Amino acid sequence: MQTQKLRVMAGSLRKLLRRKADGHVINLLTKIRPADIANIFLDLRDKERQAIFSLLMEHNRSLAAETLKSIGPERGLDLLTENSPEELSAVLQELESDSAALFISTLPEKVGQEVLERMEESADVKGLLQYEKVTPNVFYLSEALSANEAINTIQTAQDLEMVFYLYVVNDRNHLVGVVSLRQLLMGPPSTPLKKIMTTDVISVITSTDQEEVAQQVALYDLLAIPVVDEENKLVGVITVDDIIDVIKEEATEDIFHLAGVDADDHVYTPPITSVRKRLPWLLLNLATAFLAATVVAFYEPTIRAFTFLAVFLPVVASLGGSSGTQTLTVIVRGLALGEVNWGRGKSILFKELIVGLSNGVAIGVVAGAVAYFWNGNFVLGLVLGGAMVPTLFVAGLLGTFIPLVLKKINIDPAIASSVFVTTLTDAVGFLSFLGLASLLLRHLTIQ
Amino acid sequence: MQTQKLRVMAGSLRKLLRRKADGHVINLLTKIRPADIANIFLDLRDKERQAIFSLLMEHNRSLAAETLKSIGPERGLDLLTENSPEELSAVLQELESDSAALFISTLPEKVGQEVLERMEESADVKGLLQYEKVTPNVFYLSEALSANEAINTIQTAQDLEMVFYLYVVNDRNHLVGVVSLRQLLMGPPSTPLKKIMTTDVISVITSTDQEEVAQQVALYDLLAIPVVDEENKLVGVITVDDIIDVIKEEATEDIFHLAGVDADDHVYTPPITSVRKRLPWLLLNLATAFLAATVVAFYEPTIRAFTFLAVFLPVVASLGGSSGTQTLTVIVRGLALGEVNWGRGKSILFKELIVGLSNGVAIGVVAGAVAYFWNGNFVLGLVLGGAMVPTLFVAGLLGTFIPLVLKKINIDPAIASSVFVTTLTDAVGFLSFLGLASLLLRHLTIQ
Repeated sequence: MQTQKLRVMAGSLRKLLRRKADGHVINLLTKIRPADIANIFLDLRDKERQAIFSLLMEHNRSLAAETLKSIGPERGLDLLTENSPEELSAVLQELESDSAALFISTLPEKVGQEVLERMEESADVKGLLQYEKVTPNVFYLSEALSANEAINTIQTAQDLEMVFYLYVVNDRNHLVGVVSLRQLLMGPPSTPLKKIMTTDVISVITSTDQEEVAQQVALYDLLAIPVVDEENKLVGVITVDDIIDVIKEEATEDIFHLAGVDADDHVYTPPITSVRKRLPWLLLNLATAFLAATVVAFYEPTIRAFTFLAVFLPVVASLGGSSGTQTLTVIVRGLALGEVNWGRGKSILFKELIVGLSNGVAIGVVAGAVAYFWNGNFVLGLVLGGAMVPTLFVAGLLGTFIPLVLKKINIDPAIASSVFVTTLTDAVGFLSFLGLASLLLRHLTIQ
Repeated sequence: MQTQKLRVMAGSLRKLLRRKADGHVINLLTKIRPADIANIFLDLRDKERQAIFSLLMEHNRSLAAETLKSIGPERGLDLLTENSPEELSAVLQELESDSAALFISTLPEKVGQEVLERMEESADVKGLLQYEKVTPNVFYLSEALSANEAINTIQTAQDLEMVFYLYVVNDRNHLVGVVSLRQLLMGPPSTPLKKIMTTDVISVITSTDQEEVAQQVALYDLLAIPVVDEENKLVGVITVDDIIDVIKEEATEDIFHLAGVDADDHVYTPPITSVRKRLPWLLLNLATAFLAATVVAFYEPTIRAFTFLAVFLPVVASLGGSSGTQTLTVIVRGLALGEVNWGRGKSILFKELIVGLSNGVAIGVVAGAVAYFWNGNFVLGLVLGGAMVPTLFVAGLLGTFIPLVLKKINIDPAIASSVFVTTLTDAVGFLSFLGLASLLLRHLTIQ
């Protein structure tokens, strides 16, 4: 639905709510898709949201559950705080067990425990609290069935809205094959599944990291991927709609971490939370900025002699930082997409060093020329231009090396790289610029 | 397949190639999935890649085509440069027409034209050159059929590997409904499709932007989305595996643009291309850095009097930049995910201003304290600390305002925001810091 339309809906809901026309509110909501209701909620005030959600819980529990799912656990939790464990379990009951598990895992532990005890499928959900996003009510067939028997099983099965692949297991519940509905329909009805199925099944085990699961699904263009335990027993399935969420989450995480923002700090996070989450990064940044500043402090006598050097310090820092960030971003994204690994590191580093050196020379020439024309001092031009070469070379070096090393020692390369790369590059930049300046000091004539 | 295993495979292929054991090369390749072959190619040299791909073209054209698809048009193009239009059309023929169109669109225009003329399905592909990723050979059913007739049609249909939804059209080819295979199987065989199908179909029109298509698919958890023209005539379908690619592409684009890297500049881009793509950003950055430097130049007399001020210039710039980037990133990502829009701008801006102000005060206190202890000058602490508040406030203001305005006037907010936000924040930071310093000049006693 278009933004414009959503805002009109939000307005209508607000008016109906003010008139206490509860029946009309419910009526209007049932005509809107849950994902759109979630979006409309963004345009409403906290109180309005809670009032509408209470109405839904009371009159249309399944729509309440679907809306909750669309909103997601992070913002959805606000809607649930007013409710008793009874009400919570009633609404979470309506969700698939993987989604329910996700919400329960974000509740305060005691409340979550109470909700869990009240839910009918609690065994499923409990199992899932360890690995989110796995749907345990996976539909599977025994390899002993014929095509015809398999079709009958499907026709009588409950809850089978989204079946893409039919997984085949042997008598010990081990995953042995996969078959599509169409494959079942195509052949003679009496053919055993064993003969129709594809035995080369791509699966993941329960301990696989969600980012890797997403990579597998994307790489092999799958619609769902089965999850097996260490013994190859089928325990569940992860569907592509959840994978899309994972891919978006991981991308957001990388973008945010590169910028020093926490992954669960969003546009609609309350200000106090955002402050609490961003401040530590800024403090870390402050500490490293002071470290880079000590390099400048070391050369204070040089600056005292030639004050105009101070004017160009931010230029050196800015270019070093930008160039380092360019390289860093390419490497971090390459790591996330699985294109980069330690083994390929040498050739990747070599490339980035060439790029850094080339850009260093190019930027050096331009920056030097500008500095020369700025105050007619040729040596100043030489110093600024000359400093750009090692600065951008080191930016390429660190922008490649630091994320590769962090990944190697199992630290998220997006999270910590940025601060190190920019600080170290700044320090090298200041050292080159002011060092070169003090070397050529006697040639730096004040205009 | 694991990275370790892939590298072993690459080694084996290299050895077999050297021994000219062509048969064994082909044999080994047929046992590997196309997506894995694409990955192995990353570990091989240009010449090895080309030799192997030529063998595949000759002996297993469909595997060659699938491998090419996995590699993607950008890097895949290198493999095709040596081939004649005849060979190219033969291999591209094997791909679905949307993938073929993608490759043809990246060929030099004249070659592409020749290839197109030689291909059998050229009408399809030609139509697709306008909108990539739409598969035109969509499977649809007439609303006049019964469930049983529909099942028969499916059983005899060709090329139906990946059917999730069966779209239903009326006699004028207008999209009127959608039905799942399971819905077909469940009811009595004679029921007309009209009675089984869901009429509320989510579709996009041919002019819809790919990012918006991806948002729709993700929002409503779809496996495929039908594409209709202005008259609601069904022209094709976009499947979820292509949507995953779009989501990854768009995320990469945003991450790269925020860092001043071109979207098609990758880890494996040749150095000269990367230099050509990154240098313009660095030059733009240089220009804006010099603009910010003019603010410093304006206050040169103040710095001459109190050289130690120069030491803290990079600290001001660094914190302003980081804080602006934090806000900017949250807003740009929010825009990309469809959570932020102009109408909600006021409340979002209000939040970011509060966050900027709060962080400004907190960082100001710490930075001021450090500066005070650094050289025992209380007024210096006051100046640095005091400057942080307006700097971080403006960072929040610009980090929110600039991307929102760019989006409003239809410029990609990721692409241009970063430079403006950091430069303007730097300028405000220098102005606050040095302005405050020269105001309190007479209190700044040199230690």
